[in-house]
This record gives sequence, C-alpha cells and structure tokens, in this order.
Amino acid sequence: MSDAKELIAEYLEVVWNDGDVNACDRFIAPLYDIHHDPGDPWDGQTLTLDAFKERVRVSRAPFPDQQFTVDASIEEANSVAIAWHWKGTFLADLPGFTATGKVVQTSGMTIYHTTGSRITGHLQVVDRLAVVQQLR
Amino acid sequence: MSDAKELIAEYLEVVWNDGDVNACDRFIAPLYDIHHDPGDPWDGQTLTLDAFKERVRVSRAPFPDQQFTVDASIEEANSVAIAWHWKGTFLADLPGFTATGKVVQTSGMTIYHTTGSRITGHLQVVDRLAVVQQLR
Repeated sequence: MSDAKELIAEYLEVVWNDGDVNACDRFIAPLYDIHHDPGDPWDGQTLTLDAFKERVRVSRAPFPDQQFTVDASIEEANSVAIAWHWKGTFLADLPGFTATGKVVQTSGMTIYHTTGSRITGHLQVVDRLAVVQQLR
Repeated sequence: MSDAKELIAEYLEVVWNDGDVNACDRFIAPLYDIHHDPGDPWDGQTLTLDAFKERVRVSRAPFPDQQFTVDASIEEANSVAIAWHWKGTFLADLPGFTATGKVVQTSGMTIYHTTGSRITGHLQVVDRLAVVQQLR
C-alpha cells in the first residue's frame, strides 16, 4: 500500500472507528477543506484542527461504535479515492430522530486530498437515503 | 487527459447526456458488472451489451435532458474514479412519483473499471435522498 493509502486507512481506523479524536494531530492538516459533501453540516467549510476534532465528536456521537470498511482505493498524485461501507448502532438522538438502539448501515465514496503525510480535505457522497430509512 | 479518462468523459457525454444508446457499442464491454450501487435496479448484476442498453433507456426515460458534469477524476491502473453532479427535468413518471416538469439535481461518485478501450463495470454511490426530496 502507498504512503497516502496507508495514511487514509490508518486515519479511518484510529479516528473514525476507534474514536481517538486527538489522533487527528497526526493525520489532519492545519486547515481542512470539505466540499461536494451534501448532508455534511460542515460542507463548504475550511476547518481548523480544533473545528475538525469537534466535527468528529459531533458526527460520531449518535453512533459511537461506528465502523468504516474500505472496499476499494484508487490513488493519483495527491488524491486517494475510496469506496466504503459503514455501520453503527444508533445510540444517541439526532435532530428529529430518537435513538432506536438498532444497527444502521450505509455506503459512500470519498476523494481525499493529502500532502503525503497529512490529509488536507475531501469530497464525499454518502447514501443518505439508506440512513434516513433506517433511523425510525 | 489519459485514454481511460477520455473514454469515461466521452461515454458520459455521448451515452448518458446525449442519449445515443447505440454508441454503447464503442464504450461498453460485452459483459458489464454493476456492484456497490444501492438504488440502481441492476445492482449486483452482470449485464450483456443489450441489457446494458436497456438499462440506459429505462434510466434516462424520466429525465430525457439529463446532464452529468464531472468535477474530479482520479486514475490508477485500470480504474477511474470520478465525482460528478447531475441534473435533469422530471418529465416521465417513476413508480410512486408523477412527473413534475421540475429540474432535479443530485451528485455522486463512480469508480469505473476499464480495459483501456472498453468499460467493464462500476461501483457507485448517488445522493438518492436529494433526488427523493425533489420528486414531489
């Protein structure tokens, strides 16, 4: 696996799957751009490292055991595209939705931009319809 | 642009945007695999060229003026990942939804597999929630 692919794989495992928010220091650039990501409340924003950590905390809270599984990855220059599946148990309320205690599953694709040693931003598409259908 | 990226760009333009279904002969391999594509009625199937053409006809029918715009593309070996936006006017009924005559917009990402001269399959994620919210 290339350095950039390894960086992404380790980032997903440590930060998003294990929830080690402070490990963002090792993976995320001082400024992180989010675009082409409908449904992400931070879409269109450039986040500082502190704001990024808050995004991880808020996003993980309803699904604290969440797990990303990478199905495919493609790299060119400073970009890595991945296809993934995701699942998590709905354990804390979302706006308009009371936690059900049930497992929710979805899939998505993300294009990460990196400097090789840090991730500087992403584009993303998530199958949000699958999530909404499983929240009730 | 590489040969594979050009192949994908021309395919989207000619087949999906312009609706020239018979041009699939120039772009699509004799067998085409669709997977990791929730919401596509043909997800999980391997299509012959004739079945693939039927898929294009059926998929385009509700939105005959549809247009894909490629926002980013990343290539490695025989794979090309693209991020895209899409819009089309809802002009023919879908199951459960009467045509509104309104423009619908969404976005997605696709990983295409190619032989260099033909496309052999794809993985895809579409923001289906955006579509459903605009159908009524």
